[in-house]
Amino acid sequence: MDMGMIFKRKQDNFLRLINEQTALTLKGVELLAEYMKTCDPKIVSDLTRTEKEADEIRRILIEELNKTFITPIDREDIHALTMRLDDIVDMINTIVSRMRIYNITGVDKNLVEFAQVIEESVKAVAQAIGGLRNIKNVKAVFDACVEVNRLENVGDTMRDRMLMELFENHKDPIAVIKWKDIYQDAETVLDVCEDVANIIDSIMVKQA
Amino acid sequence: MDMGMIFKRKQDNFLRLINEQTALTLKGVELLAEYMKTCDPKIVSDLTRTEKEADEIRRILIEELNKTFITPIDREDIHALTMRLDDIVDMINTIVSRMRIYNITGVDKNLVEFAQVIEESVKAVAQAIGGLRNIKNVKAVFDACVEVNRLENVGDTMRDRMLMELFENHKDPIAVIKWKDIYQDAETVLDVCEDVANIIDSIMVKQA
Amino acid sequence: MDMGMIFKRKQDNFLRLINEQTALTLKGVELLAEYMKTCDPKIVSDLTRTEKEADEIRRILIEELNKTFITPIDREDIHALTMRLDDIVDMINTIVSRMRIYNITGVDKNLVEFAQVIEESVKAVAQAIGGLRNIKNVKAVFDACVEVNRLENVGDTMRDRMLMELFENHKDPIAVIKWKDIYQDAETVLDVCEDVANIIDSIMVKQA
Repeated sequence: MDMGMIFKRKQDNFLRLINEQTALTLKGVELLAEYMKTCDPKIVSDLTRTEKEADEIRRILIEELNKTFITPIDREDIHALTMRLDDIVDMINTIVSRMRIYNITGVDKNLVEFAQVIEESVKAVAQAIGGLRNIKNVKAVFDACVEVNRLENVGDTMRDRMLMELFENHKDPIAVIKWKDIYQDAETVLDVCEDVANIIDSIMVKQA
Repeated sequence: MDMGMIFKRKQDNFLRLINEQTALTLKGVELLAEYMKTCDPKIVSDLTRTEKEADEIRRILIEELNKTFITPIDREDIHALTMRLDDIVDMINTIVSRMRIYNITGVDKNLVEFAQVIEESVKAVAQAIGGLRNIKNVKAVFDACVEVNRLENVGDTMRDRMLMELFENHKDPIAVIKWKDIYQDAETVLDVCEDVANIIDSIMVKQA
Repeated sequence: MDMGMIFKRKQDNFLRLINEQTALTLKGVELLAEYMKTCDPKIVSDLTRTEKEADEIRRILIEELNKTFITPIDREDIHALTMRLDDIVDMINTIVSRMRIYNITGVDKNLVEFAQVIEESVKAVAQAIGGLRNIKNVKAVFDACVEVNRLENVGDTMRDRMLMELFENHKDPIAVIKWKDIYQDAETVLDVCEDVANIIDSIMVKQA
């Protein structure tokens, strides 16, 4: 087996793991959107399990990476990609966990709206990652990254509007503390998606 | 054209972009200081525009960096420098934006004081970056970095004092939530300036 | 003197500095545990001094690193290790400093409990770092890293339980703001310990 073959195999292995991690991230965001619409407590354990599975893939990928001398994509880029991808599902889990800690049990229309934007963003992230396998997809990958950046701006504006309303209308300081944290967490998921898109963007530019 | 020439040209290009970004950062901090003294809402749109212009320079620089195989300074250092420099103007924008969201419309003497220290720190950062062009400036660059570190300590002490007064005197919890965030944001600008100074310090030591 | 000797000396020098930094971090965590049990204000100045001494070792190590072309362990790994190790003692200092700013002067049983877990975690970190000197310690180093990860999960659960109780029982919003910050800070120390353990883990895998 020549070096080219080894190289190709390694590439396939890393991309396979990244794709598994992406699939679990997509599952996580669907559970989030469902949770926001229903506040069904059964969803919480599904989400926790998904987060643990995604974390395990990330762990295996880092281990593979540390044992590998040559990598298809820059080592630091793969490392950053898997770490930040893991942060998406972590952050999703944090939102739902914080709602439980703050004893928020009812549906909030702001969070339904936010979860939809987060779902769109994670889908665009998944599209960009799916395109990494083939250099011919460069246009589609860049478009998906631009979309993730656009949705981050949408999220910023949403969060600002929600916080403004919160401070205008709420007279209960404890409620202000709770919702301020949760809207901020929701916006942070979109920040992390943007970080992932920026890493993918860099990978494509370097390969071009 | 020999390799030395190409190398020199690339160096000039990166430094030119970093200097443009620095000039916009300086403009941003002047707008902040002005805003704190007047709370003139016209300044907000100027600041938002400056932030967008600085972001665009950062984007171009990263794109150039990803397309360039040899860079005058370590690739990671240029990347970190442009990213953290961008965080300064972002954070400045965040402070003013948060004041708007929290409906804070009057002048606060603490913020006037904080904005002055931030302005001094950004000027020292600009001085350090201006000195990167010439290895003979090494003493001036290090001195500017030391000054940025000193101002970060000043900011820490200021923030602690302001928070202590806030918790002692204010009986309105919503006001406590608002001002705590804003004083913390103000101190964070100085932390980011310190990060930038540390990156510049590393660049100089490696070149020495 | 041959290259192997130079290499060996450099390695010893970096490990010596890291070990000094680790010793100061251990001292810091012992002061924290003592402070939580007694709230003795004399401990605050000891802790501040320890934090400054640890910071100085970190500064020297980074300077050495920037002047060194070949390093025994990946340059980025040493850099990350010393930076994150410094964050442990910084974060410990932040907790005590925040208690002073918030005028919290009495013993809190939750913080006594948290400080014990933090102390255990820092001891496991110190054990892992102590094992870096010899490749034969690989099993002991990995075990210590696993322990740090376990304690981070313990801390997560503790913080969540404490926050839940805080929001259930406290009717004073100012008190909620204060304790929420402090419990979060305490959990953050364990996050930073986990980051350090992950860096050590990577170093060992690469050397294996």
